Amino acid sequence: MTEPTRRAPAGAAVLQAGVTDAITEAVLDELAEGGIGRLSMEAVARRAGVGKSALYRRWSSRDAMVVAVVSGFSVPCAATADTGSLRGDVRAMLAGLQEWLTHPRFAAILPDLVAEQGRRPELAAAVAEAVGEPRREHGAAVLRRGIERGELAPDVDRELALDLLAAPIYWRHSVRRAATGPDYLDAVTDLVLRALGANT
Amino acid sequence: MTEPTRRAPAGAAVLQAGVTDAITEAVLDELAEGGIGRLSMEAVARRAGVGKSALYRRWSSRDAMVVAVVSGFSVPCAATADTGSLRGDVRAMLAGLQEWLTHPRFAAILPDLVAEQGRRPELAAAVAEAVGEPRREHGAAVLRRGIERGELAPDVDRELALDLLAAPIYWRHSVRRAATGPDYLDAVTDLVLRALGANT
Repeated sequence: MTEPTRRAPAGAAVLQAGVTDAITEAVLDELAEGGIGRLSMEAVARRAGVGKSALYRRWSSRDAMVVAVVSGFSVPCAATADTGSLRGDVRAMLAGLQEWLTHPRFAAILPDLVAEQGRRPELAAAVAEAVGEPRREHGAAVLRRGIERGELAPDVDRELALDLLAAPIYWRHSVRRAATGPDYLDAVTDLVLRALGANT
Repeated sequence: MTEPTRRAPAGAAVLQAGVTDAITEAVLDELAEGGIGRLSMEAVARRAGVGKSALYRRWSSRDAMVVAVVSGFSVPCAATADTGSLRGDVRAMLAGLQEWLTHPRFAAILPDLVAEQGRRPELAAAVAEAVGEPRREHGAAVLRRGIERGELAPDVDRELALDLLAAPIYWRHSVRRAATGPDYLDAVTDLVLRALGANT
């Protein structure tokens, strides 16, 4: 049975989840192969085996489609289950980040999107709202749990802490193209806890 | 008086510095406007007002030219003068990094190069050798001075420390497109010193 996953504005037909899934896959494939600069609605529709109207029923523009698909892929995987300790949560969060950045299909997508954001501030704002901020909300939950457990000071600089949790892995994997194995994640975990003055 | 800045392999004519400078400027302009993916030897030669042969007398390929020009722009600005303290050196290093990343012309070049590196490992290797490693040598000098002053333990994890010195500014400025003002640099300085267990 096919369930509708979301609805277009009032009066529009119900959208089929199977079609949405096919389009989502096609967008990710197109982004991985050619980047957002070369992505066309025609190519996505062709690859998904649907008409262009199926795309425009779901999203108003190419950017809106790309941002929604990238968000759908990127935000859920930032959720970190409560491991019972700040150290455990941070280590799990870093592992999730590494998995996201090194995902075979996604590894090429993010640096490409980052480059395009530099050229188009409106795209940067849309990505920050739909991808960056919800991912940071998941990170903030880790910090909140640390504060509740008494492992972090209540006035810890959350903005800086969240940058620190993401930055080293991104820099090492996506910019330097160097390895980020388990030892590196362990070392970054220690470093983050020390930097945040954690009581663990 | 025009000084030759470098020589082609033995027997070749001396290269004129003025021509090299014009080509360098043209490469940076072309990279900033269209990225490495769209950069052609023809367009660089036209913009520099020289023939394509002037390019090939200096570099064997488009990639070699781009990497040399980006290295020439990026490596010298990573040199950090001895301020007399680890805190001062780290703060100066972060300011230099910020200047590099936010440079009007260069801001678009690096994220674009990073994206292209993801598609072409041989380019990533060339950039790491000619840009990343020499820049890290300058960073390593800051750590060495800290060790000599007794502010850092001799067994500090240099690889991780160098990642930590660069990553937060890159993540915040180039990926998140958020502000990296003096307060942020101060906060990152404190955080880095704490993370490295510095005795300051």
